[in-house]
Amino acid sequence: MVRRICCFVVSFFLVSSLSFALTPAVHHPLDALTPSEYWTVYRTLRAAGHVEEKTTFASILLREPAKQYVLSWKPGDPISRKANVVLFDKGHSYEAVVDISAEKVESFRELKGEQAPFTDDEMHEVEDAIKHDPRMLEALKKRGITDLKQTHCYVTPAGYVGLPEQDGRRIGWGGCIYAEGATGMWDREVPGLFFVVDMNAKKITRFSDYGSVPMPAPSNDYDADGGPALPGTQPIITTQPNGPSFKITDGEVSWQNWHFRFRLDPRVGPVVNLVSLDDGGKRRSVLYEGSLSELYVPYQDPEETWNSHVFIDAGEYFMFGGVGTIKPLLPGADCPTYANFFSATFYDTSGKPVLRPQMACLFERNVGDPAWRHTDDVGVFARPSRELVFRSVATVGNYDYLLDWRFEQDGSIHVAVGATGILEVKPVKDKTAEGPLSDGIAGKDEQGNPLEFGQLVAPGVDGVDHDHFFSYRLDLDVDGTNNSFMADKLVQYKLPKDNPSPRRYIWAMQPTMIGKEGDAKMDLSLQHPTMWRFVNHATHDPYGYPTSYEIMAGETATSLLPSEEWPQKRAGFSEHQLWVTPYDPNEFYAGGVYVSGSKGTDGLTEWVKKNRSIDNTDIVAWYTVGFHHVPRPEDWPQMPVMWHDFIIRPFHFFPKNPGMDLPMTP
Amino acid sequence: MVRRICCFVVSFFLVSSLSFALTPAVHHPLDALTPSEYWTVYRTLRAAGHVEEKTTFASILLREPAKQYVLSWKPGDPISRKANVVLFDKGHSYEAVVDISAEKVESFRELKGEQAPFTDDEMHEVEDAIKHDPRMLEALKKRGITDLKQTHCYVTPAGYVGLPEQDGRRIGWGGCIYAEGATGMWDREVPGLFFVVDMNAKKITRFSDYGSVPMPAPSNDYDADGGPALPGTQPIITTQPNGPSFKITDGEVSWQNWHFRFRLDPRVGPVVNLVSLDDGGKRRSVLYEGSLSELYVPYQDPEETWNSHVFIDAGEYFMFGGVGTIKPLLPGADCPTYANFFSATFYDTSGKPVLRPQMACLFERNVGDPAWRHTDDVGVFARPSRELVFRSVATVGNYDYLLDWRFEQDGSIHVAVGATGILEVKPVKDKTAEGPLSDGIAGKDEQGNPLEFGQLVAPGVDGVDHDHFFSYRLDLDVDGTNNSFMADKLVQYKLPKDNPSPRRYIWAMQPTMIGKEGDAKMDLSLQHPTMWRFVNHATHDPYGYPTSYEIMAGETATSLLPSEEWPQKRAGFSEHQLWVTPYDPNEFYAGGVYVSGSKGTDGLTEWVKKNRSIDNTDIVAWYTVGFHHVPRPEDWPQMPVMWHDFIIRPFHFFPKNPGMDLPMTP
Repeated sequence: MVRRICCFVVSFFLVSSLSFALTPAVHHPLDALTPSEYWTVYRTLRAAGHVEEKTTFASILLREPAKQYVLSWKPGDPISRKANVVLFDKGHSYEAVVDISAEKVESFRELKGEQAPFTDDEMHEVEDAIKHDPRMLEALKKRGITDLKQTHCYVTPAGYVGLPEQDGRRIGWGGCIYAEGATGMWDREVPGLFFVVDMNAKKITRFSDYGSVPMPAPSNDYDADGGPALPGTQPIITTQPNGPSFKITDGEVSWQNWHFRFRLDPRVGPVVNLVSLDDGGKRRSVLYEGSLSELYVPYQDPEETWNSHVFIDAGEYFMFGGVGTIKPLLPGADCPTYANFFSATFYDTSGKPVLRPQMACLFERNVGDPAWRHTDDVGVFARPSRELVFRSVATVGNYDYLLDWRFEQDGSIHVAVGATGILEVKPVKDKTAEGPLSDGIAGKDEQGNPLEFGQLVAPGVDGVDHDHFFSYRLDLDVDGTNNSFMADKLVQYKLPKDNPSPRRYIWAMQPTMIGKEGDAKMDLSLQHPTMWRFVNHATHDPYGYPTSYEIMAGETATSLLPSEEWPQKRAGFSEHQLWVTPYDPNEFYAGGVYVSGSKGTDGLTEWVKKNRSIDNTDIVAWYTVGFHHVPRPEDWPQMPVMWHDFIIRPFHFFPKNPGMDLPMTP
Repeated sequence: MVRRICCFVVSFFLVSSLSFALTPAVHHPLDALTPSEYWTVYRTLRAAGHVEEKTTFASILLREPAKQYVLSWKPGDPISRKANVVLFDKGHSYEAVVDISAEKVESFRELKGEQAPFTDDEMHEVEDAIKHDPRMLEALKKRGITDLKQTHCYVTPAGYVGLPEQDGRRIGWGGCIYAEGATGMWDREVPGLFFVVDMNAKKITRFSDYGSVPMPAPSNDYDADGGPALPGTQPIITTQPNGPSFKITDGEVSWQNWHFRFRLDPRVGPVVNLVSLDDGGKRRSVLYEGSLSELYVPYQDPEETWNSHVFIDAGEYFMFGGVGTIKPLLPGADCPTYANFFSATFYDTSGKPVLRPQMACLFERNVGDPAWRHTDDVGVFARPSRELVFRSVATVGNYDYLLDWRFEQDGSIHVAVGATGILEVKPVKDKTAEGPLSDGIAGKDEQGNPLEFGQLVAPGVDGVDHDHFFSYRLDLDVDGTNNSFMADKLVQYKLPKDNPSPRRYIWAMQPTMIGKEGDAKMDLSLQHPTMWRFVNHATHDPYGYPTSYEIMAGETATSLLPSEEWPQKRAGFSEHQLWVTPYDPNEFYAGGVYVSGSKGTDGLTEWVKKNRSIDNTDIVAWYTVGFHHVPRPEDWPQMPVMWHDFIIRPFHFFPKNPGMDLPMTP
């Protein structure tokens, strides 16, 4: 009898657990591509004669249907499905749109002036040519390196910087790693080498040897699984014995009053869709779609070997180190063990679908903070809070970015990005900062003031200064698609002379509607604070205000490079913290669709030149989280997570704090 | 047998729990005053003839011993103990220093031009005079209020604004609440009344009736204990079955590599002391003392009735609504149930010690985030994190501020303040924002642009715009007392013409030492980012850099009022985000010691006029967290917690990430 109860319970949990395992299936037009759809894409393109044995699938992404189609679609309706495909073959790049439902190629064209993203395959194909270039062999020999077995050379897409050698060519530049004697590779860069590779000709077209410094002693090795806890460390155990409070039905997540869908995109990672709130039985829309749109990581070093490190990660690098920017999460470390994990189906460069485990996790948590509280004479009024965390992690080479969408009980969404992983470090001759540092890591400005370009994080290991900019695309639909953008300024206000107050100044909010995208480039300023609100003038709260959601910035940074500097032209979105554009089905990527070798002719900076209306129409917000990073030894050999976030929060959306009726139990 | 095991377990936990209960005792010179010490203070002052039946104890605070004394003190040494006392008697304020160890009054003087903080007693004494003033009776009658039983009038300290009536007097101004028909009181302000009270004469000296608007319907009433959880809500259970990992020995908290002491101060709340880190068996100092120093909450409204609301909360209000800014925490809501709670001994206005429960809590938590992580080709390298949270809550009237000191495994301290509680709201005649709003809540600037001074959060209820500024005093002692302040600028750098890089610009860090406090007023700027570091030039990391800790700002705000505006003169610390001063045992409060009626002649703005050296000496950082608040209906009737934080983090303090050896278990 005992045994039967036990088994009944087990089966119950199995069933309950299975209901969350999202077997790849299309329940909704915005769902991710399934294995069978990838195969349809493959077969359709092959049948049309576009795929030969050596053709590379450089990108296969869901082509989102038109928004109006999605919004009018209902369960049971047929689902139109398409894919955007980029092929690379014999040095040529092609763009295809495949109608999956109809199994036909809707369009196919060769890219001119644009190119497919680089792939691992392509890099491997040029490695031998790089290693065996006579200039390389000589440069390595000068450095005492003759063992090519432990020498690994790589190429990265050459960010356009106006060099004549780049025009009309598929150009990479790169470096080499000398692995002998170490297990970690991130401090094994062979110093002083710079070379330019014609990826189609598969040869080095320019080679510069800026001189050698000794390889530093390995400092990126460590025990990957750590030791025992410090003496006295006691367990902290968090469980959900009855399972989670969220439900997932046909791909839709429901938790508390929140509803949303998601897909895991090979390029931009987690995409949340159709985020809405139940408000007294009525479903109210907040965000049609939200995702990372682009990342920009420019290194700041005087030497060409290192200031060429300008990474526009999502667009340039989603096919590096395995297809897809996002990578598996580790249960128990990246997410609690009680989290639900979700796999994703991506593809490989042959066009074959590839199932990837633990690509996102979803968990509730109560971190011990109140939702709200107040002490009155008679006691404490307070409620514990919980939140729902939807998390993925993007790893782009050395860096890892935790990407969180946190749904709160007060109607807000906290979007957080946690930077961690491994620093990019440059070998320098300096073992110590006592005494003057060498030119590779320090210098002087024209006035003779000292400058530092990085910090030693180990002897001979320079953690090079750099920035991180994360551009988020936020297609807010507050109570419907037609919204307007308010930039409500907080301004000093001198009280009129006839005002009897002894105060002479206050500040006041000056509501300011921005009608055109050209005027919606917003810069944060402590002296001139502005509230950014996305307003629906057709719906009102009970007090007569139009409903809105606010984007509330967190700690962030702006680019310090001039706009005319090439990296900056290519990632111009980093110059302002917020942009607002009208919805356009072709505008998804703040740095443009084809980023490898791009010249900044696609993306936010270009689009807004049209100066389209953003007044009472379907609008999209682009918010950039940024930070400057001067590395510390404390960031080595792995960086403690540094979180940055921003908040999307209701403002005249609810008639009161929606968390007032929370229970007393966490 | 079963029963005995049960009881054994229970006793074990009781014993284990008792070991953390800090019975009031003096183990260390910086420990809080104990009940017997309060009685000694009382007896000593009374014996010296300074205490009569009606004498009010307006403030009894530990007088911290000289820092050098504390640093050279060793367990077993006698402990010198003193108290700073402020007495108020028959309209006169007195300042006393009582030597508790010697049981004698060390100094005693009457305050001239400065005054004791206001107390509840004093307010109650004037209430009848206010209510029965003929002008008040008439004004109430005009508003249909004749029931004085449900009319409650209050006085707050009148922030100095240059009115002749304020000079040389103890002045308050206030308002009345009409409670009939409601349980919540925060939306019951009788509109349009302004009056000035001479607290010593106990009468209204000026009375203004700015005209009436109808009392709004009650909207601050709600079910204090909430309802059941939403359907489907499942428990999240966090436990520490073996108890916490921290130890408390003679008042010193030890957790992981961290050590610190704390006391709960009636005026500034939680004070952390002697924060240090174990580094391979060596105790290294980080922070001699850290605490809130002052709060500043100016309201921004055109009407005298409301722009007179300028609260310098710690200094003016620590004797309001019960002695002490900090108030009890609610287990299970404010802190997890498994937290340890700490009582505090404060005093009442008779000088009697009063024991207060749950005035701070201490708990470990693992929120499900990694400490660091990296995905490599072969797998995921990651470690779960935990942190130690030391929390109190300050309630000052309507607002509540969660005050967190969070100790991290990466050697950083996260200082966070969470604003919650109840809005201050003003009755206005507007029931809706459709159509033009009345003068009380909206207006126009000289150019005719619309301005809003608040938002309706319920019909007739105006959430008035205001700011919050929290000044933290951070006596950093990085590896010892003598530190210097570096303001390392990140500057655009044009590469020299002969540099072969195609990049023309990078940014670089320009290390800049600030030698004088007058030059150490730091403003945050996106265009001109600066890293603030507290450097010990006498100690070095293994790579030759002086050791340091950085203060890393979070999202914050600066005051929008001109410096010559009186509220701003009195709380000038809010004009810059960071100040650095040399340690001075008399400089604890950024807005001065005696804040009631202050004219800004004490506090940060004054001290730094001396332009003392801060070079290689004992220095103190003053960081202000600020934010502007335009209230939303979503902030009513209780505000969701809004967190702001900053980070104190090691920079060249450790040779590597101190969390590298963390275990794989959370």
